Amino acid sequence: MLKPTPKIGVAILGATGMVGQRFVQLLADHPWFEIVAVAASEGSAGRRYGDACRWGLSMQMPGSVRDMEVQACLPGLPGRIVFSALPSSVAGTVEEDFAREGYAVFSNAGSHRMDPDVPLLIPEVNPSHLDMVNAQGANRGWPESHGGFIVAEPNCSTAILTLALKPLHDCFGLQQVMVTTMQALSGAGYPGVAGLDILDNVVPYIADEEEKVSTEPCKILGEWDEEGALLRPADIAISAACNRVATRDGHLEIVSVALGREASPADVISALREFTGLPQHLGCPTAPVPPIVVSDAPDRPQPRLDRDAGGGMAVVVGRVRRCQVLDIKFVLLGHNTFRGAAGASVLNAELAIAQGVVR
Amino acid sequence: MLKPTPKIGVAILGATGMVGQRFVQLLADHPWFEIVAVAASEGSAGRRYGDACRWGLSMQMPGSVRDMEVQACLPGLPGRIVFSALPSSVAGTVEEDFAREGYAVFSNAGSHRMDPDVPLLIPEVNPSHLDMVNAQGANRGWPESHGGFIVAEPNCSTAILTLALKPLHDCFGLQQVMVTTMQALSGAGYPGVAGLDILDNVVPYIADEEEKVSTEPCKILGEWDEEGALLRPADIAISAACNRVATRDGHLEIVSVALGREASPADVISALREFTGLPQHLGCPTAPVPPIVVSDAPDRPQPRLDRDAGGGMAVVVGRVRRCQVLDIKFVLLGHNTFRGAAGASVLNAELAIAQGVVR
Amino acid sequence: MLKPTPKIGVAILGATGMVGQRFVQLLADHPWFEIVAVAASEGSAGRRYGDACRWGLSMQMPGSVRDMEVQACLPGLPGRIVFSALPSSVAGTVEEDFAREGYAVFSNAGSHRMDPDVPLLIPEVNPSHLDMVNAQGANRGWPESHGGFIVAEPNCSTAILTLALKPLHDCFGLQQVMVTTMQALSGAGYPGVAGLDILDNVVPYIADEEEKVSTEPCKILGEWDEEGALLRPADIAISAACNRVATRDGHLEIVSVALGREASPADVISALREFTGLPQHLGCPTAPVPPIVVSDAPDRPQPRLDRDAGGGMAVVVGRVRRCQVLDIKFVLLGHNTFRGAAGASVLNAELAIAQGVVR
Amino acid sequence: MLKPTPKIGVAILGATGMVGQRFVQLLADHPWFEIVAVAASEGSAGRRYGDACRWGLSMQMPGSVRDMEVQACLPGLPGRIVFSALPSSVAGTVEEDFAREGYAVFSNAGSHRMDPDVPLLIPEVNPSHLDMVNAQGANRGWPESHGGFIVAEPNCSTAILTLALKPLHDCFGLQQVMVTTMQALSGAGYPGVAGLDILDNVVPYIADEEEKVSTEPCKILGEWDEEGALLRPADIAISAACNRVATRDGHLEIVSVALGREASPADVISALREFTGLPQHLGCPTAPVPPIVVSDAPDRPQPRLDRDAGGGMAVVVGRVRRCQVLDIKFVLLGHNTFRGAAGASVLNAELAIAQGVVR
Repeated sequence: MLKPTPKIGVAILGATGMVGQRFVQLLADHPWFEIVAVAASEGSAGRRYGDACRWGLSMQMPGSVRDMEVQACLPGLPGRIVFSALPSSVAGTVEEDFAREGYAVFSNAGSHRMDPDVPLLIPEVNPSHLDMVNAQGANRGWPESHGGFIVAEPNCSTAILTLALKPLHDCFGLQQVMVTTMQALSGAGYPGVAGLDILDNVVPYIADEEEKVSTEPCKILGEWDEEGALLRPADIAISAACNRVATRDGHLEIVSVALGREASPADVISALREFTGLPQHLGCPTAPVPPIVVSDAPDRPQPRLDRDAGGGMAVVVGRVRRCQVLDIKFVLLGHNTFRGAAGASVLNAELAIAQGVVR
Repeated sequence: MLKPTPKIGVAILGATGMVGQRFVQLLADHPWFEIVAVAASEGSAGRRYGDACRWGLSMQMPGSVRDMEVQACLPGLPGRIVFSALPSSVAGTVEEDFAREGYAVFSNAGSHRMDPDVPLLIPEVNPSHLDMVNAQGANRGWPESHGGFIVAEPNCSTAILTLALKPLHDCFGLQQVMVTTMQALSGAGYPGVAGLDILDNVVPYIADEEEKVSTEPCKILGEWDEEGALLRPADIAISAACNRVATRDGHLEIVSVALGREASPADVISALREFTGLPQHLGCPTAPVPPIVVSDAPDRPQPRLDRDAGGGMAVVVGRVRRCQVLDIKFVLLGHNTFRGAAGASVLNAELAIAQGVVR
Repeated sequence: MLKPTPKIGVAILGATGMVGQRFVQLLADHPWFEIVAVAASEGSAGRRYGDACRWGLSMQMPGSVRDMEVQACLPGLPGRIVFSALPSSVAGTVEEDFAREGYAVFSNAGSHRMDPDVPLLIPEVNPSHLDMVNAQGANRGWPESHGGFIVAEPNCSTAILTLALKPLHDCFGLQQVMVTTMQALSGAGYPGVAGLDILDNVVPYIADEEEKVSTEPCKILGEWDEEGALLRPADIAISAACNRVATRDGHLEIVSVALGREASPADVISALREFTGLPQHLGCPTAPVPPIVVSDAPDRPQPRLDRDAGGGMAVVVGRVRRCQVLDIKFVLLGHNTFRGAAGASVLNAELAIAQGVVR
Repeated sequence: MLKPTPKIGVAILGATGMVGQRFVQLLADHPWFEIVAVAASEGSAGRRYGDACRWGLSMQMPGSVRDMEVQACLPGLPGRIVFSALPSSVAGTVEEDFAREGYAVFSNAGSHRMDPDVPLLIPEVNPSHLDMVNAQGANRGWPESHGGFIVAEPNCSTAILTLALKPLHDCFGLQQVMVTTMQALSGAGYPGVAGLDILDNVVPYIADEEEKVSTEPCKILGEWDEEGALLRPADIAISAACNRVATRDGHLEIVSVALGREASPADVISALREFTGLPQHLGCPTAPVPPIVVSDAPDRPQPRLDRDAGGGMAVVVGRVRRCQVLDIKFVLLGHNTFRGAAGASVLNAELAIAQGVVR
């Protein structure tokens, strides 16, 4: 298996937040990468990471990062690769600044997801879209020689959903998707949702989430026309209803689909179970095997019991059965800060390394 | 307004459980009814209600009931009306025994809901179905003169859903319904769901619930052909996905509908807001005015904030908007132990009194 | 019973926050008072109360307040009485400004609690301390004729604790108190504690709380020497450990006490049960009867079941038993936003009216 | 370091329950032990472990155990060592049956804890008490040659508390202890506490718990007089108040102590930090290094963040400060199903192996 020697230096932008901490957790002992810089907002820059960061994970903060000085989010950081956990309000410009200067930027933010020259990447689903980065420099007037680019990962609910939809789209042709999400608190960042708002409660609304879940999968499942350098979005009607519930981690999604070809629940289960992807084939260290776990239990997946499947990178499907309105319905779960956030970008970077896209 | 004088004596079967306690709460100061007997299982019979019952409501146990002796669930109890909060495992036979002996039985149990001669009653939705009781005695070979009968109320999720569907069915013709529920702990009775199973978790399965929600609304929204003494179920395809979440009371339902006629969100909101029912017209004391509350807030209804609307008897609708797959989607909430259980049967009994069906 | 006619106009400062909302709830239909102004911070001033306030109570916002225009927190507001739910950061100056201008200020804030000329009032415990207000004007150089003053209520945990300690101090002489609190989320205001911090967790620290609970009761239980215009604090050693738990409302306190005289658990129960206070005698409308409820159940009080005792104004004691280290231990519960906040100030104002202190 | 070769076969009694599952988790890859039998009640015996057990841990069930046939809890099981996670109602007799037949029984049950010839063992605290097993056979009339015995572990709250008290007792002389616990749901087994009882609530009572916490530490901290074969309990007055809170794992304890010698918080912190024990010295694989972690953070330990310290086997102390009533107070946390249950017995067995007590 490929293993870069020496390790590749990476910087984390927004390293003190919820997703930034997951990046630290995932990258601290990564076989390919080495954290060489942690950066955050003005208020944190100049402080020791261990002091600037309100660590909220139950595993201990890695010692190698604790004493690093937090840097400002400006090009000039060491490392060739930048992982961005910046809030969308600032990510747009900052990420572009880094890419222009030649960094490979793997972003968790929403800012560039729907840009026509930015791949919205899930390595198991649309690895060929990675080619889209080749045109970014020319499109945006960046100095060509630098070779920097931006790769976006989808919204957390989308990332989980689209991974499960991929084999159904390939095998049976997806036409319609209805999804109701029950999303975990960590998806809203820190401090995020007030305890008073979620204890003994559900909040049936998450700002902008339904729009993202309705549109992003069509881009991800779209076809990349390399000749025309054009992405043709998939023609799937998606209706999403997004809710916040009192779980810590793990987005649960109730999904119904209409398919282009007749398929029984057993057919769907087979398609899900047999599915694998390029990062598994290439041996990317963060790629879960299998990427989709199918449970036979009558009452699974459940967030607390199943969110850590495949190190938080697999999604778990259960209760596959006929839908009385569309064709098939099922329950889907994924870990929102691994598969839905930091882990997704790390896997994107691994694919880019393995495919030789990062120079 | 009608007000029976003196009050009508009522007995509560299964009076010590969760739903039984709500019956006690609702009937203790009811303007028409007076609790004359509380009955429960063998283990409780003979004990003082205050001792036999593990009272779980935050309001105090009504003093008038505290010292009553718990009776066995056998005909011979005082009162003409019986409210049944029995578990389905025993309700079938016991309720029939009481009806045969001339009691008007208003049941919260599932046992007789789909019997062809038992009305599955929501007073605002299908009051005419109450006529079905007239044939029960003959059908079942009961002594005719006694006049006893059984009226069933729907499953809790169904009761809430169908009340909101009624104006849509009337105004636009319902064709398809997709519903994902997030149901409260009290819906599972006591002790019900273990704390360990629901803390930081969602359980995406409730035994038999999806079948009930898929079939009961068609009976309720069906047409009663008085001539032929025949109920024609409504022809609506309903797909339900039922989940247990960490809320105490209040079932939240995410609903999408396909309609027979074009309707904008504004049309749907008008239909919901303008809806009223026979029990409101008749002044039944438990009938909420209005029966359906429509919220304009972007993030409502929420269980903790909205479950007590209309004394727990109104349902609250919010977020009415277009659905990308069906036609219209919205968020719906109702109190599962009021509108979905004890309150539903009390309102059924009030309608039966007001319509002269209880003799 | 005394009933001022017409009602006395009152203003609420900080009316849009958690405690401010409880003031609105308590005062909207108060038999003596009428809300004539709601005031809040710059950001809210000028807006309609219904728009400026993120209403978080399950009861509906009173219609009479919904359309009021939120005012700035400056003297000149209508009304003779001002209830202050301001944050401590601004309460100090603002409350003094109002008092100087002749308003009777009843404050929920911590700013003036330990001022030597401000009574820290619990009407059942130390009504005579109300006389302390007479010297405030002279002390502070306010224009004498105006008659304004400040009355403080204790910290929420203190208010609940000290009410229960009062009969023990009177009957047996309190010497030492150990208290461990388990405090509700609403005590931290809104948004307060993050959902991520409290789900599946306890936070064993609340800033400054232990100091307040250790010192305030000694002032409240102290003796007011009217001649010398001097308050002699009670000589009681109090050790507090304060924790935040995942409850919405209701502070639970585990208390052990060392007493000056031998007392059995039965003696203590009698003292608690027989206790009553001046506001009960005077018929103050917010005074609970009895102020202290003693439960015989082996596992009570519990926040969810007992916090609403006496309309949230009674405290509930249970599990009175011998302590192996001090003398007696017991479990104590009170509603932190009624008895511990808004209700406390309303009762303070009622006492001041009934005693003729408000002119 | 000692490492038995080949591994020692062990059986788990009560293997399907909450604590039994933790035994399976801890022993599945244990360097010294190998699970050779899983046993449970009649209802489970004869079934496959994977079918009989409602696995409630987020880690996957170890594959090596999944297909084992569950046995009845009767002597004759393979293995020399038996771990008992039986309920106290049956543990007394069953454990004695196994010991009589020559098994070394390490029990999590309460049945034999206070037996005068059974060591109540915490390897870091009272390893010398292990000698007590030598007299068990003679005392109880068991066939001498067999060499079986029973070693008990303390109640979960006691185990955590006493480990932290040990260095204080050694260094300063413990005289009085006041402890208020906030205990996790997993301590009550499965299904244990109903979701309805603990959501938005605290239950200030756990049956028999306070008695255990008040008495067991005196036995554990007592002196074993080998000559007289007599255990002299420590003379410490302990008052406990035990509460159930809505956490999954991790018992939090608020502790105040009176000491025989003057000690500052800094002295106490030093004593705690410097403490180590025999199992650490012997290199027992389950022994945490250090056994007591002291946190400097103002708001720690917290259950969610700190319960996994030392693999769940360390206890974490924070907020060491002066007590206004006794001498020193602090916050203490330990994992109730590791240090307080399964892990404790595994460590007991490791000590017994390392000391040559298991023959």
